[in-house]
Order: sequence, then C-alpha cells, then structure tokens
Amino acid sequence: MPNRLPVELAKSYRLLNHGPTVLVTSAHAGAMNVMAAAWSMPLDFSPPKIAIVIDRNTLTRQLVEASGEFALNIPSRELACLTLTVGSESGRDVDKFKAHNIATFAGEKTGVPLLQGCLGWLECRVIQEPHVQSTYDLFLGEVVAAWADSSAFSEGHWNNDQGGRRSIHYIAGGNFFETGDAFDVEK
Amino acid sequence: MPNRLPVELAKSYRLLNHGPTVLVTSAHAGAMNVMAAAWSMPLDFSPPKIAIVIDRNTLTRQLVEASGEFALNIPSRELACLTLTVGSESGRDVDKFKAHNIATFAGEKTGVPLLQGCLGWLECRVIQEPHVQSTYDLFLGEVVAAWADSSAFSEGHWNNDQGGRRSIHYIAGGNFFETGDAFDVEK
Repeated sequence: MPNRLPVELAKSYRLLNHGPTVLVTSAHAGAMNVMAAAWSMPLDFSPPKIAIVIDRNTLTRQLVEASGEFALNIPSRELACLTLTVGSESGRDVDKFKAHNIATFAGEKTGVPLLQGCLGWLECRVIQEPHVQSTYDLFLGEVVAAWADSSAFSEGHWNNDQGGRRSIHYIAGGNFFETGDAFDVEK
Repeated sequence: MPNRLPVELAKSYRLLNHGPTVLVTSAHAGAMNVMAAAWSMPLDFSPPKIAIVIDRNTLTRQLVEASGEFALNIPSRELACLTLTVGSESGRDVDKFKAHNIATFAGEKTGVPLLQGCLGWLECRVIQEPHVQSTYDLFLGEVVAAWADSSAFSEGHWNNDQGGRRSIHYIAGGNFFETGDAFDVEK
C-alpha cells in the first residue's frame, strides 16, 4: 500500500484525539485476534501514550497480557460492518481473519498484525499497571510506531474530508456516527 | 430549561461513547472552573464509570482533588469557540464564567455547576486511584447523575441529527470535526 506513511510520534495522538472507534489487534505464540473498542483515548503527547479498556473475558486480553503489545487500527465507514462483526464475536469461537477474509500487514516495532484498509495505525507496548488492569480492565500503552494512509492524514494533519473516507464513532446497538466535517475556530 | 431530562444511569455511557470533546466543570470552597478535555472515555457500564485526563497544572485538577467531584458537559458546535477559549486559558488567571458570560445550573448529586446550552451532562465522583492520578494525570470517576437535552438525546438514544446541534471532536490547533451523520449497520 504505497499510501501508508509513518506518522511523527509526537503527532500520533491526533489520529485518536477526535474519539474514533478503533479495531484492536493482538498476537501471541501463533494466535492473533481483532476486536472493536469504542473506549480508548490519548493519555499523553510525548512519549505518546494511550488508554484503552480491554474486557477480561476477551481473547484479546489474553494475547495482550501475554505479549505486552497491541495495535489500534482506525477503520473508515467502509469497515463499519466488519467493526460491528468483530466486536460481537469471540476469537475463541472463530478465526476472525479467516472468517471475514481480513488482510493484514506486519507491524514494524511490534509483532502485532495491522489491518489493511484502515485510516491510521498505532503500535503500542503495554505500560504495566496491574492494579488498574485487573480492577478496571484498563490498559495503558506507549505508542512506539504510528502510520496513516496519506490520503486521509498526512504531515501530522487530517486531510480535508479525510480523503473521502470518514472514521466512525460507535454509539450502541449497531448504531454509529460517522466523523463529520472539519472546521476551524478562532479564539 | 424544560428540555433537560435525566438519563438512565445504565445508558449514560452513550452520551460519551462516540468520543466527543467535553467541558469539565468543578468547584470547591467557593471557587469554580471550566476547562476543555478531548481525552475522556467511558470505563464501565453499570455502575457507569468514566476516565479522563486532568493535567496537574490546571486549576481544575486542584478543585477536583479537593472536592472529589467533577462534571462532563457535552458542548454542541455552537459552543466550539467557547470550548477552545476555556481550553486555552487558566482559571487561575481569569474567572472564565464571568469573562465569557457562561450560564450554569446546579448539579443534583454533586456540588458542581453544569453549563447551560450543552447536549448532555455527567455528574461524577472521583474513584480514588492516587497512583494513576499522580503518574499519568488520569482520573477515574463514577457517574452519579446524567442529563440530556431531550431535543438531542432522549430515552437512551441520540435523536436523529442530534436535534440539529452536533457535538464536536477536537483535533489540534483550533481544528475540530463535528459529529457527522448517524447510520445503522447490520451484522
């Protein structure tokens, strides 16, 4: 995919700052998985950190705890149906990648697969905080590499209209908002 | 405001699930403040919890640590300029409520002022987690009351077109996305 370019780490929070729903990928010892997550946010600028909720009953949780790594993939509206689907299945019951013909490429700084066709990607290493992990299912991660489809995000900025492919924001029950128009405000 | 109705606590996460930028209000011992925050997310359904980053250098941090309470107010695009402004000033330098003629009403379960003209409101009590507060500026809160403007959100659901007033998603440098169109996906 020639459009995929690295994002400067100090600006990688901008991929997540507007609160899109993400797809979380993970891998360990030959197993890999993908799940949907509406509950993630940036946590710091530099080094960039993020926070995400990963339910204790998921295969993703098991893989993330074992590997200490995960990635956030930012899907466009074209992937909304897949987002809902992989958010409703368990990787213990089905190989989601095979079942839905999901194409991946290798992360550079982690062993985590990244999903083709997304708008942006954040490779993360878990910052070990066992108490909040076990009490709240809350994981903190340092972003160690970031990428974006340059038609959507380039030189540290979302492009106008995100290159025609909008990110998405899950509400509940199969209902989403798409990311709307960008606008500038003067103080 | 006759349109302001309580939101069932178990559905209050839906006010925040799509990742809008919020205004954080706080009060203690006669002082009160409002700041903007793009970094918040739901943390649990029931009892509902949220996570938010509150920088250690802010007056809001001081008031929240002293009172153990805060509220998330969800502004519409009409309040984007105010959101940028109160996100750029310090409550130590200026009384933002007076300077910008911001009207408030009293929270019901907390002593925190809520901002008139917003789409939704979440009154929160801090869940004391001193380690993540001091290390990451990360605060966890239990939502103890929630409200919405019924023209935007009613009976546990965002209305079509949010009643014509879209919520907002901050990116950086005065640039926002508005929340776009809602759509349904079938698995």
